[in-house]
Amino acid sequence: MNAVMPLRPQLKTRRVNLDTGRENLVVISRRSTALRPEVFRGFSRVELRRDDRVLLATLLLTDDDSLVGPGELGIAEPAFRRFAAPAGSYVAVTPAAPPASLDAVRAKIKGKTLASPEIASIIDDLAHFRYSDMETAAFLVGSASFMTTGELLALTDAMAKAGTQLSWQTKTVVDKHCVGGIPGNRTSMIVVPIVAAHGLTIPKTSSRAITSPAGTADTMEVLTRVDLGVDGMREVVSACNGCLVWGGHVNLSPADDIMIAVERPLALDTREQMVASIMSKKVAAGSTHLLIDLPIGPSAKLASAAEAMRLRKLFELVGDHFGIAVEVVTTDGSQPIGNGIGPVLEAQDVMAVLANEAYAPDDLREKSLRLAGHLLEYDPALRGGVGYLRALELLESGAALRQMQKIIEAQGPTHCRNEVGDVAADVRSTVDGFVSTIDCLHLNRIARTAGAPLDKGAGIKVYKKLGDRVEAGEPLYRIHAFEQSNFDLAVSMAGKNPGYAISSPGNQHVP
Amino acid sequence: MNAVMPLRPQLKTRRVNLDTGRENLVVISRRSTALRPEVFRGFSRVELRRDDRVLLATLLLTDDDSLVGPGELGIAEPAFRRFAAPAGSYVAVTPAAPPASLDAVRAKIKGKTLASPEIASIIDDLAHFRYSDMETAAFLVGSASFMTTGELLALTDAMAKAGTQLSWQTKTVVDKHCVGGIPGNRTSMIVVPIVAAHGLTIPKTSSRAITSPAGTADTMEVLTRVDLGVDGMREVVSACNGCLVWGGHVNLSPADDIMIAVERPLALDTREQMVASIMSKKVAAGSTHLLIDLPIGPSAKLASAAEAMRLRKLFELVGDHFGIAVEVVTTDGSQPIGNGIGPVLEAQDVMAVLANEAYAPDDLREKSLRLAGHLLEYDPALRGGVGYLRALELLESGAALRQMQKIIEAQGPTHCRNEVGDVAADVRSTVDGFVSTIDCLHLNRIARTAGAPLDKGAGIKVYKKLGDRVEAGEPLYRIHAFEQSNFDLAVSMAGKNPGYAISSPGNQHVP
Repeated sequence: MNAVMPLRPQLKTRRVNLDTGRENLVVISRRSTALRPEVFRGFSRVELRRDDRVLLATLLLTDDDSLVGPGELGIAEPAFRRFAAPAGSYVAVTPAAPPASLDAVRAKIKGKTLASPEIASIIDDLAHFRYSDMETAAFLVGSASFMTTGELLALTDAMAKAGTQLSWQTKTVVDKHCVGGIPGNRTSMIVVPIVAAHGLTIPKTSSRAITSPAGTADTMEVLTRVDLGVDGMREVVSACNGCLVWGGHVNLSPADDIMIAVERPLALDTREQMVASIMSKKVAAGSTHLLIDLPIGPSAKLASAAEAMRLRKLFELVGDHFGIAVEVVTTDGSQPIGNGIGPVLEAQDVMAVLANEAYAPDDLREKSLRLAGHLLEYDPALRGGVGYLRALELLESGAALRQMQKIIEAQGPTHCRNEVGDVAADVRSTVDGFVSTIDCLHLNRIARTAGAPLDKGAGIKVYKKLGDRVEAGEPLYRIHAFEQSNFDLAVSMAGKNPGYAISSPGNQHVP
Repeated sequence: MNAVMPLRPQLKTRRVNLDTGRENLVVISRRSTALRPEVFRGFSRVELRRDDRVLLATLLLTDDDSLVGPGELGIAEPAFRRFAAPAGSYVAVTPAAPPASLDAVRAKIKGKTLASPEIASIIDDLAHFRYSDMETAAFLVGSASFMTTGELLALTDAMAKAGTQLSWQTKTVVDKHCVGGIPGNRTSMIVVPIVAAHGLTIPKTSSRAITSPAGTADTMEVLTRVDLGVDGMREVVSACNGCLVWGGHVNLSPADDIMIAVERPLALDTREQMVASIMSKKVAAGSTHLLIDLPIGPSAKLASAAEAMRLRKLFELVGDHFGIAVEVVTTDGSQPIGNGIGPVLEAQDVMAVLANEAYAPDDLREKSLRLAGHLLEYDPALRGGVGYLRALELLESGAALRQMQKIIEAQGPTHCRNEVGDVAADVRSTVDGFVSTIDCLHLNRIARTAGAPLDKGAGIKVYKKLGDRVEAGEPLYRIHAFEQSNFDLAVSMAGKNPGYAISSPGNQHVP
């Protein structure tokens, strides 16, 4: 229908100071001179055109001329930035036909298996912000129930090709990834300097926390700048063999960023989508060898070894297809790793391990050495079985610490404060006994309520781990915050449920 | 978590002059004094509280104090109206926990069959605007692939109970419903006066067109007021036995209105959801006897008798469960019914039939008599088989016309213009032959492009029907419009594809 439109009503653009997050949103007057708002009937989709530039957006109406006048088109952020026409430009607005790839989404909903070009067109439309959130949700839910191997591969491929694609000078480019969910667990910040100190290339991008109290990017930001772009990342890797940057500015899989933003509020969590999400970023990042960490535990993302095994098969399948050597290890996900939960407290754990401090948390140190040992053996020059010892050598000699300092310097100074929150209180056991379970999810919630990750120094310092003996009145952990209101909330939450189960001495069970 | 929140930041409400259609939308300042906008991270969900009043809304951020200042909370329409707190009130805003019923939506996505209370809680949250569009889409797509009989019944029940529930003094309350898609087809406006003239109660609510050139409510509005509320509707029915009003103000199934608004842009179209949508409104409307019209044709909603049969079984199943006597008839959906397409042109057809004019379209007259005959036999006093004859008697005697005039007077005067669009041109056949197919969907698009239903007098006047002989140069139909730009678009559209196929005389095939 658009092809035959002889008339293209012209409206004068105006920036509307509203940040709509992800979705494109525009506003016209109910008394618009060039458009008949009734045609659009409220919250519907329009197409903006200026020269070769096209943008799909959701339309709102207003009666307020001071916001958007009858001859104007208001464009909210980020649509204004994406459309990149200066305020005062004239643009054409027409009711938007839905993106053509929605036909494939509907076919998938009806049970059809999609061909690669269909999946590629969906991801192309997604990555170019042509889908409304509703349409993205339809795709995710429609493909949540089942996805064939071919669909999974096509999805991974399309997602990898939608954004930046990195390539590296070195033949071997290693990476590690943890599916997450375990508080503390900041092994990347120890593994990367060890592996880089050895001489392998490990260009690590990480995410920020969205629902947890810290992502690796949040914790690394306590020590150094993390918001580097592709060029900055390349420079750091060229100087240090590795980096630890936030993935947000590298744009490895823009479609994934959009899908995750929709999956999260819906709490959708399907294996195939998780694998496509992770592997598309690794393919785009130019990784040749990848170690996947799957923590298993009652409050971890994976509750059993059987679940982990199914996921492992999917990772291996996709890795084989794209020529990435994938190794999957399962780890203990029954309790926090390290003692700190929250960016500053976790950064302290990391630096204590790297500095070989006596008080460094042993579990974080051992897990990091084990993972680094796996990665080091991707070096053809290293004999099988010696990876762990080589990692230990690099850690104990101080080489890993020096490498971390070099990376920190190369990434540049941070503006974040690095003090621990000074509004603090201990949460104590009410009984004698042994720690029998720790609810990772609940500790995450308490740490987040205390202010992490926005307050870098807020969070939890863990004193007792599984199997530890505790006496009534003895502290289990300490809550740190800066703001009294957050602190009160977190303490009240821990008062109702500390997240620890204590078995009486005569009745100990090891979970 | 909300239960333990001791702090409730207070923001002063302000109306933001933006109509967001259906979704609740609020705005805070990026420098908000009482909230930390980073916590919300853009387009996410918040909960507003004032006394006992709670509203879930999607949050946008602004830097513009003139829109929303640091101590303010901007509330867009319709959220402002729904929350019903005067501008300047103080309200508490917190990040919103997702509606609890989303757990059931996720279970459904994973393949679980939902129990009635789960479906009831989903519909309750939907009808109270607690779902974002994304969440509504997740429910619709998640239940599109399969739905058990039990789920369908529970869904219909929950939807019927979510809005207004009507009851009537008379024992027999009849209704008819067409699943739509056929241009012209305004049988309700003939059936209702016939049935009402006989003395049966027929309180008919109809929809407006969303994607078609006219709904029954749009066409009836040419003759009389249709935006009556429940009380107004009752008065008309009490005086005239029947009415023909727009369903929008009667609020029979608010959840359905929301679901349809999401289904439409996604073009989701599942049998179960269609049946639940229709039947929930009939249950809520207090119907005891219901006649369903399923037109079958290549460009109708149902392409084959087999499809219609599956749908019929679902209607009967739900009807039996709720004690509604459902009768399903299949009708010819291969071409427009009547000659007019568009509100004024259709209203002319209807009045010509009621007035027994010689030029009245015979197909509309015959179909209406047939449907009215079915409905009349729901009167226990009428002998089986005489329904059609009784309908004919009421039509030919002028009783139906008088009843229609009574209904028109009772519903009150309309403000709509009733002239046919004066910018007009004929679309002509280029060859000699017989009309072998008519594309209903395409004629709908042309009529809509000409301006219908917003321009009541715009649309199409059909001259030739299936099997009619045409000569090259002879008109097939006439396009009517008021605005030259719409007219040009419609003519250009018809020039590319008139929507008619003409078989040569030696090669005629009847579709």
